[in-house]
Amino acid sequence: MLARDLAEAFPVVGLDDDALDAVRLLASGRLPGIVVANAQGRPQAILPGSQVLRFVLPLYVQEDPSLARVYDEEHADRIASRLAGRPVRDVLPRSDQELAVVDEDATAVEVAAVMARLRSPPVVVQGGAGILGVVTAAHLLEHLVPPP
Amino acid sequence: MLARDLAEAFPVVGLDDDALDAVRLLASGRLPGIVVANAQGRPQAILPGSQVLRFVLPLYVQEDPSLARVYDEEHADRIASRLAGRPVRDVLPRSDQELAVVDEDATAVEVAAVMARLRSPPVVVQGGAGILGVVTAAHLLEHLVPPP
Repeated sequence: MLARDLAEAFPVVGLDDDALDAVRLLASGRLPGIVVANAQGRPQAILPGSQVLRFVLPLYVQEDPSLARVYDEEHADRIASRLAGRPVRDVLPRSDQELAVVDEDATAVEVAAVMARLRSPPVVVQGGAGILGVVTAAHLLEHLVPPP
Repeated sequence: MLARDLAEAFPVVGLDDDALDAVRLLASGRLPGIVVANAQGRPQAILPGSQVLRFVLPLYVQEDPSLARVYDEEHADRIASRLAGRPVRDVLPRSDQELAVVDEDATAVEVAAVMARLRSPPVVVQGGAGILGVVTAAHLLEHLVPPP
């Protein structure tokens, strides 16, 4: 089985799309993250939900979780306001981490090797026509470790 | 909203449970990982799908993805055989990383702070009676960044 057969549809957003819309897409689709493409339609980054939280929560709350209780739920509206009007590119981690991308004709074991090395599900599947979707660890394990 | 209200049911396995069964549970439930409890029913670890792949793939395949093509799909049966008869404890990462656990009466912002700091969804919710479930980043963002 090849990466193109393992790929599942996954929403893709652009670097200049609205960050608040992207986060709502992630939340409503119950996704672990969202794929960000550059202007050429190539995968640029995967934006995980935990990175969104790093962006929206004040640093003092992240560094001392006991202060999180002080920053109580009445401030939750401020969380959305930190995303409003910002492009997706502003929310991305400043990271040089290699992006988990495979070609559409990579084998299941090749996809698994990339996922294991980068500890990164999902892996983005790139075809000639653009981003085909992503492969999650669970879907890959379903194929590699089939039911008895 | 408190952690107990945000927690979603999630399968829990024991350290001595069969690793192959645990991985099949993860795969069939399309879960990002699985919660591992110790003999006292307290959360011991979260086993992510990518860690399972690190365990089952030979090291040379992980270090050089181009060798993954050589290790072709006929060897996929060996992947399941590496898990067979092993307890879950053998598959866990050798890691001192702090486990993402919150008390059932933690606020949503407290859960978010733990998730952001440890870059770890899901976060395990611990109650007096044991593990209540997990909070995912998407579910938390659904609450913190509600639809317009």
